[in-house]
Amino acid sequence: MTRSLTSVDSRCSIARSLEVLGQKWTLLIVREALAGRTRYAEFRARLGIAPDVLADRLGTLVEHGILERRAYREAGEREREEYVLTEAGRELTPVLVAMLEWGDEHRPTGYGSAALPVDTATGRSVRLAFVADDGREVAAHDVALVRGPGARPL
Amino acid sequence: MTRSLTSVDSRCSIARSLEVLGQKWTLLIVREALAGRTRYAEFRARLGIAPDVLADRLGTLVEHGILERRAYREAGEREREEYVLTEAGRELTPVLVAMLEWGDEHRPTGYGSAALPVDTATGRSVRLAFVADDGREVAAHDVALVRGPGARPL
Repeated sequence: MTRSLTSVDSRCSIARSLEVLGQKWTLLIVREALAGRTRYAEFRARLGIAPDVLADRLGTLVEHGILERRAYREAGEREREEYVLTEAGRELTPVLVAMLEWGDEHRPTGYGSAALPVDTATGRSVRLAFVADDGREVAAHDVALVRGPGARPL
Repeated sequence: MTRSLTSVDSRCSIARSLEVLGQKWTLLIVREALAGRTRYAEFRARLGIAPDVLADRLGTLVEHGILERRAYREAGEREREEYVLTEAGRELTPVLVAMLEWGDEHRPTGYGSAALPVDTATGRSVRLAFVADDGREVAAHDVALVRGPGARPL
């Protein structure tokens, strides 16, 4: 039996996100989609992922509204489908950047960052930070997770 | 054969992070550790996770420097081990908060947030944001990932 990540606490949004995003390859498919890849063959070539696994993960991402299928046709070819990020999919950028920043710091390759988040308006690099309501930045080691209004009753 | 997430691009920090963090249950164990849980029995009770899987994930987290084992002994009992977050482990807070914020937005429960990130100095809530070098906030939809200095040569 495979246990569900939300079997004990179905109200936890971390567990609920991981139910969709936590399968192997899923976030790397999102990474490729954010880099502009839309086609099955591109995901295959970039990730070296088995065809059946890729098809399964693309299906899961469509089912959960992260990618949407769109038909396209190239001259002289049959109609095919491509996979385009939805708004919910594009909003995964902070998840990927948080992974990227942690990996750069704690699993460095010795080559420097392979990818950098930039402000597309200026081309300058940005980073993730915690900010308070007044815009003041709060250091990550001063941040704790506390129970919110939707927490499961104790 | 199980393919490695970094088999095609070993320089990608997202893939390198996911190699450690991407296994099922791992980030929920980190969530519990950030909430102050340190003991095997606490993780078991909070997550409803199978004993062999929990032991495996704790071992992986120790091996990769996210948790460290410490001995403790309660009066009249044998010495046991507990699992304490390292600095690298505590620095996973942004990864979990990014998952939390995405889940609250895109997989809502109807009860509101089950957990909130707060500034421990003031008790007030904080959120993740992209900031530029000058401290200016940049909207997530204006952020793109571009090739960094350590990217695999084209």
